[in-house]
Amino acid sequence: MKIGLDMMGGDLAPLEAVRGIQQFLARQHQATLFCIGDAAVVAPLLDEYGLASSVQLVHAPETIGYHEHPTKALKEKKQSSIAIGFHLLATGKIDAFISAGNTGAMLVGALFSIKAIPGIQRPTIATILPKLNGNTGLLLDVGLNADCKPEQLNQFAVLGSLYARHILGIDNPSVCLMNVGEEEGKGNLLAQASYPLLKQNTQIRFAGNVEGRDLFNDKADVIVCDGFTGNVILKMAESIYDIAQQRELAADPYFSRFHYENYGGTPVLGVAKPVVIGHGISNAKAFMNMIRVAEQMIATDLCGKMAESFAGNS
Amino acid sequence: MKIGLDMMGGDLAPLEAVRGIQQFLARQHQATLFCIGDAAVVAPLLDEYGLASSVQLVHAPETIGYHEHPTKALKEKKQSSIAIGFHLLATGKIDAFISAGNTGAMLVGALFSIKAIPGIQRPTIATILPKLNGNTGLLLDVGLNADCKPEQLNQFAVLGSLYARHILGIDNPSVCLMNVGEEEGKGNLLAQASYPLLKQNTQIRFAGNVEGRDLFNDKADVIVCDGFTGNVILKMAESIYDIAQQRELAADPYFSRFHYENYGGTPVLGVAKPVVIGHGISNAKAFMNMIRVAEQMIATDLCGKMAESFAGNS
Repeated sequence: MKIGLDMMGGDLAPLEAVRGIQQFLARQHQATLFCIGDAAVVAPLLDEYGLASSVQLVHAPETIGYHEHPTKALKEKKQSSIAIGFHLLATGKIDAFISAGNTGAMLVGALFSIKAIPGIQRPTIATILPKLNGNTGLLLDVGLNADCKPEQLNQFAVLGSLYARHILGIDNPSVCLMNVGEEEGKGNLLAQASYPLLKQNTQIRFAGNVEGRDLFNDKADVIVCDGFTGNVILKMAESIYDIAQQRELAADPYFSRFHYENYGGTPVLGVAKPVVIGHGISNAKAFMNMIRVAEQMIATDLCGKMAESFAGNS
Repeated sequence: MKIGLDMMGGDLAPLEAVRGIQQFLARQHQATLFCIGDAAVVAPLLDEYGLASSVQLVHAPETIGYHEHPTKALKEKKQSSIAIGFHLLATGKIDAFISAGNTGAMLVGALFSIKAIPGIQRPTIATILPKLNGNTGLLLDVGLNADCKPEQLNQFAVLGSLYARHILGIDNPSVCLMNVGEEEGKGNLLAQASYPLLKQNTQIRFAGNVEGRDLFNDKADVIVCDGFTGNVILKMAESIYDIAQQRELAADPYFSRFHYENYGGTPVLGVAKPVVIGHGISNAKAFMNMIRVAEQMIATDLCGKMAESFAGNS
C-alpha cells in the first residue's frame, strides 16, 4: 500500500513529519510512504534522518498556508503539496493522503477531488474519545456539518460503527445519540427526529441516548451528533488536557490521553478514499499515529466496506 | 427578606437542607427562612439542630417525587412543598423559592405560577463556569430551551449580563456567543443569525465568538448558546469533576470547583421572582450556597433590574 504524506503541513513540519516517519518505519508496517513537499527542504532532512532510500519523495514547489482561502488556494496552487496529494489519491497513485496543513483545503480536496461514497449525503469528521476504562470511543460529526438533518446523523451512525469495528477493533460497537436526557422523545427537534431513525437502523447496534456526562464512560462506543455540538465537545475535551497541564496533572495517564498527539488525526469518513487531517501543531508522534490510522484504513478496506453499506442507498 | 426552601426536595433532604440552613444562619445574613415540608419530619430535625426558633416552618403534607410528571403532580398535589412554595412566592409571602426536588416541577412552577417578565420570550437557566484564573463565568441556556431562535439568545445575553454584574460582581461583563470558530459568519444557522443581533445589542458588551476550548479561560464572562449545546457542556463539565475524582485528583483546588455543591444551584432567569433549582444530590454546602444566591438575587433586586431592561420590549 502507498500512503501520501504532506511534508509541508503543520506548524512543526517538515521536521516533525520526518521524525514521525522515522518512528513509523521503525515499527512493523506494510506501507510505502510518498513524501510530498518542497524537495529543497525535505530531501536534506530525509538524508539527515537516514530515510532517503526508505521513502518516495514527490516534489511540490508550492505550499498552501494556514490562512489561505481553501477553494481559491487549491485552484490556484496546483503544485502545492495538498493539491498534488489529492491528485495522486484521485488517480490511484497513492491509497491514502494525510496532511496537518490547511484544514479547509483538506476538506475541500476530500469532498471535491475524492468525493462522497455513493448514497452518502454528507461526509463527516470524527474524533477519538478516551474512555476512563481504558477503551476508546468515537464521536462524530465534530465540525464538518454544523447543521444536520436526521438522516445525516443516521448515516454518521453507520460510518462511525464501521470505523469503530475496523479501526478501533470494537466488535459490534454500541451507537448512541448525544442528547439532553436518557428517554426517547427528549432533546431538540434534530435529536427527537433522529432517535426513531437510529432505532430502526439494522446496520447499527443502537443503544439509546447519552448525555454530556457519558462521553468518557462506557455507555457508548460511538456517539453521533450534529457538527456544532460535536465541535464544541471536541474543543472542550482538548481544553481538559490544557487544564490538566496548567494544574500540573498532564502526566496523569488518563489526562495524557486527551493530548492531540495521541489522536492519530481526524479521519474524513464517507469519502471514497482514506483522508486523514492532522492537528496544526502535530508533532512526530501525531504524524506517526496518523500514518498508522491511514495504514489501518487501507488494510481493512474501510472505504470499500462503507461503500458496501450504502450500496442500496444510492 | 423572606426565602422559602423546599425541605423535601433532593436525595439528601431534609437532613442536608437542615444542615445547610445551619451553615447559612451561622454566617452574616439578611434573610428569614421559610422551611416548607412535612412538619412531622422537619420539626424534629430543626429542633435537633437548634434551629426551631430561627426559622419559620410551613407544613406541607405532600411531596412531589423525582419521577412524577411535573404538570400533573403540581396540579394534583396542591399541598406538596413545591406547590406551596410557588403559592407563597406568587402571593408575595416569600421573596424567593428554592428546591432541589423535581426539576421539571420547579420549571413548570416558575414558568406558570410566577411567569416570565414582560418582554421576555422564554426564561432560561444558567450555570456557573469555574475559570482557570480564579474568576467565575456564566453559561446559558443550559437545558430549558433545547431549540432556540436568535432573538432568544440575544435576550439570554442581557439576562446573563445582569446576573454576572449583580450576582457574580463582574463590572461590565463581556458576553460571547458559543460557536465553532472565531470569525463572524462561522457556525450553524442559529449562531450565524444570532451574531449580528448580539453585535447590535447596546445593553451588553459583546465580545464575539468563543469556542469549546474557551469555556474555562478568561475570554468571556457570559457565554450564550441554545439549551441543547449548553446542557451537553454542563453535563460534560460535571463529568470533569467525576474524572478528577476517579483519578484521585478531586482535591485539586481547581477541579474541586467543578463540584456541584459549589454552584449554588441553577437560577431560573427571566421569571418575575427569584427561583433557584438545586442538584438532586444537593448536600449541606449546596443548600447553603443556594440560599445565598437567592439572598443576593433579592438584595440586588435582580428581577426588577431585568424587568427594567425589557420594559421597552413588551
